[in-house]
Amino acid sequence: MHDFTFHNPTKIIFGKETEHRIGDILYEEGVKNVLFLYGTGSIKNNTLYDDVIASLNKHGIAYSEYSGVSSNPTLAHTIEGIAKAKADDVDAILCVGGGSVLDEGKAIAVGALDDGDVWDYFTGKPVTAALPVYTILTLAASGSEMNGNSVITNTLTNQKFSFSSALTYPKVSILNPELTFSVNPAYTAYGSVDAVAHVIEGYFTQESGSGIQDRLCESIISSVIEATAVVMQEPEDYDARAQIMWSATLALNGLPVTGLKNYSFPNHMIEHSLSALYNIAHGAGLSIVIPAWMQWYKEKNPERFTRFAKEVFGKSSADEGIEALKAWFRSIGAPVSLAEADIPASDIDAIAENAAQTAKVWGMSELYSSKDIEEILMLAR
Amino acid sequence: MHDFTFHNPTKIIFGKETEHRIGDILYEEGVKNVLFLYGTGSIKNNTLYDDVIASLNKHGIAYSEYSGVSSNPTLAHTIEGIAKAKADDVDAILCVGGGSVLDEGKAIAVGALDDGDVWDYFTGKPVTAALPVYTILTLAASGSEMNGNSVITNTLTNQKFSFSSALTYPKVSILNPELTFSVNPAYTAYGSVDAVAHVIEGYFTQESGSGIQDRLCESIISSVIEATAVVMQEPEDYDARAQIMWSATLALNGLPVTGLKNYSFPNHMIEHSLSALYNIAHGAGLSIVIPAWMQWYKEKNPERFTRFAKEVFGKSSADEGIEALKAWFRSIGAPVSLAEADIPASDIDAIAENAAQTAKVWGMSELYSSKDIEEILMLAR
Repeated sequence: MHDFTFHNPTKIIFGKETEHRIGDILYEEGVKNVLFLYGTGSIKNNTLYDDVIASLNKHGIAYSEYSGVSSNPTLAHTIEGIAKAKADDVDAILCVGGGSVLDEGKAIAVGALDDGDVWDYFTGKPVTAALPVYTILTLAASGSEMNGNSVITNTLTNQKFSFSSALTYPKVSILNPELTFSVNPAYTAYGSVDAVAHVIEGYFTQESGSGIQDRLCESIISSVIEATAVVMQEPEDYDARAQIMWSATLALNGLPVTGLKNYSFPNHMIEHSLSALYNIAHGAGLSIVIPAWMQWYKEKNPERFTRFAKEVFGKSSADEGIEALKAWFRSIGAPVSLAEADIPASDIDAIAENAAQTAKVWGMSELYSSKDIEEILMLAR
Repeated sequence: MHDFTFHNPTKIIFGKETEHRIGDILYEEGVKNVLFLYGTGSIKNNTLYDDVIASLNKHGIAYSEYSGVSSNPTLAHTIEGIAKAKADDVDAILCVGGGSVLDEGKAIAVGALDDGDVWDYFTGKPVTAALPVYTILTLAASGSEMNGNSVITNTLTNQKFSFSSALTYPKVSILNPELTFSVNPAYTAYGSVDAVAHVIEGYFTQESGSGIQDRLCESIISSVIEATAVVMQEPEDYDARAQIMWSATLALNGLPVTGLKNYSFPNHMIEHSLSALYNIAHGAGLSIVIPAWMQWYKEKNPERFTRFAKEVFGKSSADEGIEALKAWFRSIGAPVSLAEADIPASDIDAIAENAAQTAKVWGMSELYSSKDIEEILMLAR
C-alpha cells in the first residue's frame, strides 16, 4: 500500500426531504447572501426551486439567482457568474443541480475572490482562496458533491480542463435520492457509467492492488451495476436510487484511491475530447471509450483484468470481463461505439490531437501519445 | 437505505516514516504547547519516543509528558491527566499509542476545558468544547484515530463507559504501519478481532442491508482476515500491516454504518463487562462473546447470517459461517470461550448484571435483559 493523505471534510446530509434543510444549514454556518446557481430550469419542473427559496426565506438569507449552467459547463458562463457573484457581494455559493452546476459553482467560488483570469486555475495556477460552496445534488454521477474537483470547457479553444483543490470541497452536500427519480433513463445510465468509470481508472492503472482497495472498488462497481438495473425498470425505487447516489459519491471522494500508486485517468482524458468537441454527455463518452481502452490496455496489467472479470462478473478471463462490462453498458442504453454517437471515424485524428493536449496538461504525455489515443479510438469505431 | 449524516473531518497521513512529520503538522496548525500522552513505555523500545521529541523540538513546540496510560484506560489516570493539562496550560493533546492512549487523550481534551467531573460526559452530558487532539497510532484495532469516541473505565464502580462527540475527532492522525511491526502476535490478533467486531455489530443488527453497505462491511472483514493470516507468519510484512491498519480505521470511521437503521453494539456492550471486571484485552473479550452472541442471535436476522457465510467465507449456511469465524479467531490465537480466559462460569450472573448496566446507559435494555445476556454468556462458557 502506497503512502497517502486522506482528508475529506465535506459533510453529507443524505435522505428524504433533506433539501428543505438548506436554509437551516446556511443559517447555522453564518451565511447571509448566496449565489443560487442552477441549470436550465429542470429544478422548476418539480417543487425543488420553490422549496429552496422557501427554506432560504425562512432564515432571511439573501440570494441572487444565476441559472443556465449547461452540461459540460462553459468558461464563458462561469466568467459571467463570477462577475455576478462579485457584483452581488455574495459570501457563499449554493449549487442546486448535477455535477455541471457543482463544478461551475466551485469555479465561481474561486474566481469571485480573484481579479485574474479564472482559466489560469485550469492550467495549473494553485487555488489559494474560495468562497464556501454548498450543494443540493439532483444527479448521481460526477462525485463533485464530495471532492474539490471542477471541470470546465473553454469553447473558444475546445479545451475541457479541470482543477482540484482542498479549498473547493463543498462544506455541506445534501443528497436526497428522491430528487433523482425524474432523471430520464439515458441520463441515469450516463450517471452510472460515470460513477463506475471513476473507480475503474484507478483500479486498472495502479501498479499493484491488494486487499481493501480492490474490494472497495469492486463494491462500488457491483453496487452501481446492481442498482442501475433496478431503476431502469422502476425509476422511483428509493433504495436503488440511494445505492447509486451514495456509491457515485464514494467513487470519487478519494477513498477508492487511498494507497494506490501511479494511477491515472486515461478514459477521462480521452472522453473529455469527445464531450468538448461533440457536446455529448460525459457518461456517454465514457461508455464509448472504456471498452476500447480496456482492450488496448489489458496486456499491460493482466492480473487486474482477470480479477475484475471474476470479482465483478463471475467470469474467468479478461476478455469475458470486458465483454460483460460492455454488455452492461448496452443493457442500460449507453453507447459503446463512436458510430452510435454519430461521431465519424474520419474525425479520429482530430480527436486524438485534442486529447493529446489534455494528456499534456495532466502529465500523461509519456503514457499516451496521440498515436496511442488514435489506436484506442480505432477500437471504439 | 436509511437517512444519515456523514462528516468525518480527521486528516489521515498514512505511510512510512510519517511520524517524523508531527512537528511540522503541529507547527502548521499553530500549536505551541502539547500534552504528550503515551502508555507504559513501549514507545521507548524503538526510536519512536525520540523521534517525536526531535520533531517537536525542531519547531520549538513545548511539551509536557504524561505517560502510564493502561489498556482499558482508567478514570483515575484520566483525571490526573486533566490536572496536568490544566497546570501546564497546553493548547493541544498529542496521543502516541494505541486506542487506549487515544481514548484517554480525548477525555483529557474535554476535561481540560471544564471544571466539572469528566465522568459526567460518560454518562450522558454532551461535549461542548475540547482541545484539539493529534495522534500517532501504534496499534491497529480501535478505530479511535478517525472517530470521536472515547472509552474509559471507572475502576471504583467497575463501569466501562464511553462518549462520542464531533469535537473529539482527531484533527490529524498519523498512521505508519511500520510502527505496528513490533506488536506481539496476541495483541495483533486482538486488534484484528476488534476491527472485525466493529463492522459485525452494524452488519448483523441492522434492520435490512443492501448493496453498497453490505459490500463495504464484507470488504473490511475479508481484508482484515486475509492480512492477519499474513502477519501471523511474517510480522514485518508492510503491506499486510498496512491493510489491517487502514481497514481497522475504516471499520469505525462511520462509513460502514452509513444508511443502516436501528443497529446496535451488543457484543461491545457485553465485552465491556469482561474487560472491566477481568482486565482482559478488549479484542480477547470480543472473540469470546461474538460466536456465542451469533448463535443466540442468528434466528432474529437469518438472511444476514447466510449472506455473511457466503460472502466472507464461501460457506452455505449460517452455522458454517459462525463456525468459520470462530475457527479464524482460534487460528490467530484469540480465545473463544470464557474458560480459555480463566473466567469461571459461576461468574456469569455477575457479568450479566454488570453488562445490563451498560445496556441501560446505551439505551439497549429493551433489546437485552440481564437474562438474555446470561443466555449469551452461557453459550460462551
